[in-house]
Amino acid sequence: MAETGIHVLPKTGAEAAKQGTLASFKDFVVVEVLNDDPMAKYIALLGRFEGRDEVAVLLLNRKPFNKDSLSSLVGEGLELQHDFVNDIYSKYVGKPPPEHATVTVDLIYPATEKHVRKYRQQRRRMVKETPEMYEGIILPYILSYPPAALQWVYNVLEKKKEVDRLIFEDPDPQLGFMLHPDLKWDQQQVDQLYCLAIIHRRDVPCLRSLDLTHLELLENIRDKGCKAIQDKYGVPANSLRIFVHYPPSYWHFHVHFVHAAFAAPGTAAGKAILLDDIIDNIKIFGKDYWRQRTLTYQLGEADDMWKLLGGAV
Amino acid sequence: MAETGIHVLPKTGAEAAKQGTLASFKDFVVVEVLNDDPMAKYIALLGRFEGRDEVAVLLLNRKPFNKDSLSSLVGEGLELQHDFVNDIYSKYVGKPPPEHATVTVDLIYPATEKHVRKYRQQRRRMVKETPEMYEGIILPYILSYPPAALQWVYNVLEKKKEVDRLIFEDPDPQLGFMLHPDLKWDQQQVDQLYCLAIIHRRDVPCLRSLDLTHLELLENIRDKGCKAIQDKYGVPANSLRIFVHYPPSYWHFHVHFVHAAFAAPGTAAGKAILLDDIIDNIKIFGKDYWRQRTLTYQLGEADDMWKLLGGAV
Repeated sequence: MAETGIHVLPKTGAEAAKQGTLASFKDFVVVEVLNDDPMAKYIALLGRFEGRDEVAVLLLNRKPFNKDSLSSLVGEGLELQHDFVNDIYSKYVGKPPPEHATVTVDLIYPATEKHVRKYRQQRRRMVKETPEMYEGIILPYILSYPPAALQWVYNVLEKKKEVDRLIFEDPDPQLGFMLHPDLKWDQQQVDQLYCLAIIHRRDVPCLRSLDLTHLELLENIRDKGCKAIQDKYGVPANSLRIFVHYPPSYWHFHVHFVHAAFAAPGTAAGKAILLDDIIDNIKIFGKDYWRQRTLTYQLGEADDMWKLLGGAV
Repeated sequence: MAETGIHVLPKTGAEAAKQGTLASFKDFVVVEVLNDDPMAKYIALLGRFEGRDEVAVLLLNRKPFNKDSLSSLVGEGLELQHDFVNDIYSKYVGKPPPEHATVTVDLIYPATEKHVRKYRQQRRRMVKETPEMYEGIILPYILSYPPAALQWVYNVLEKKKEVDRLIFEDPDPQLGFMLHPDLKWDQQQVDQLYCLAIIHRRDVPCLRSLDLTHLELLENIRDKGCKAIQDKYGVPANSLRIFVHYPPSYWHFHVHFVHAAFAAPGTAAGKAILLDDIIDNIKIFGKDYWRQRTLTYQLGEADDMWKLLGGAV
């Protein structure tokens, strides 16, 4: 690099970043918090190196605790500052020794608009959908949905796609369904099991459509889905959280089977509704139960439905 | 303390621990890793102070990143060590400045066998609690619960504890409640907001106890709780996920208010039930709704209730 005899100037952050040789973020400016996941202790930032137009996406992740070096973590090196005490419960802020306090830093630089969108989180809102809002706004919206949006589902049901991933099929046109591992699941660890059952019937867009005439279908999915998962993966029915999403991400009825130990995204109340709750409510409270309810659920602000319901809630 | 002229000896860790005045874990020995959640960057340890038989449960949690002081986190103070580079993607190990590297430390000391069981990782099971199982097994179990287990709740309600943390109180003996930030929440970042409303009435152990006579109480909690949170933290009602747990971790009715963007533990369907769903169901389907339902929920295998119900499901 210095072969012409010119002084080697200290590299700017931008140059070092491109070579993966940054020493710190000295001349870096954060422009936007793209996402912040306090549960995972993760944050995604958009920023710029001084004097540069190109943007960078920066991902910071706390490290898990290292079980193999607990004696150096939990010892004299962990400085404690009192926060709170009540009976046998006390709470401190702890400063761990530096080697136990590292974070992983992922940098994408220069980042494209596509990277930025990928890592940017949208605001989530809770809405209350009354039966009248469903009939007047959501149902027409579902019915106006272009059929092409469900083509990928029909490709799966017609075995044009994902045939090699099929776990189980009940081909009955009224009661039948297909069960596949969800694409999110790598099928390596059964305690992260995530499977999807898609029904063969094409006239049930969502939870709101369900009544007494669908009970046999719902029980069939539950019973045969659980048996297929037990047979293939050895996970018993009582280790499965079985639910639907309302609203679903596509308007063709499908059921999620997820390992009960797995805190998968999309399992929260206000998004997930247990299949057993769906069945129990129809049985006890009548065929119109899911049409009579005011359903409270989360929507992203970028969601079409938030725009449709936004004024009304 | 030293009024008799005796030297004040340096306190042992065990003594300091009981008073919430530990400075470090100098004379603490880890006996067992009870749980390790690398996703949440959390670890639960069982240990002892030297020379003591009583055990302690120690919970360490990495702090989420603090969005409000990013300039001091992402700057010169974040020391980077090169890990990997490929095209625009690079990866480092980062050493954040100490104030950005703290962990929360929760200590239960002396801990009972029940605490140890609670924090020891256990297999999660889904159970179906029929109305008959509630009446025959769970209700007698609740009623047999030692009142001392709720003493900490009564301490809060009687303002013997946590007075400085009180956000809002409605003192009405029938409709009233107290609202506090949950201990899990450090009150720094509103998108991690987690508050708890505890009712003044002492005769409502859980969801199953609720009927038409509690509607006013439930709506009061929702409406005044949301208003108090809006006033204090600026978070509007439609950014809150409001729910109860069934089964709850203690049998005195309380309601969780959590930011909708926050994937907090315990928000999953099969554990959390939305307050609006509770209200809506009582209104539409009658006063006995929550007694008539078969409730499907998760239990740890070490839970007393799993043992009680285990044979029956």
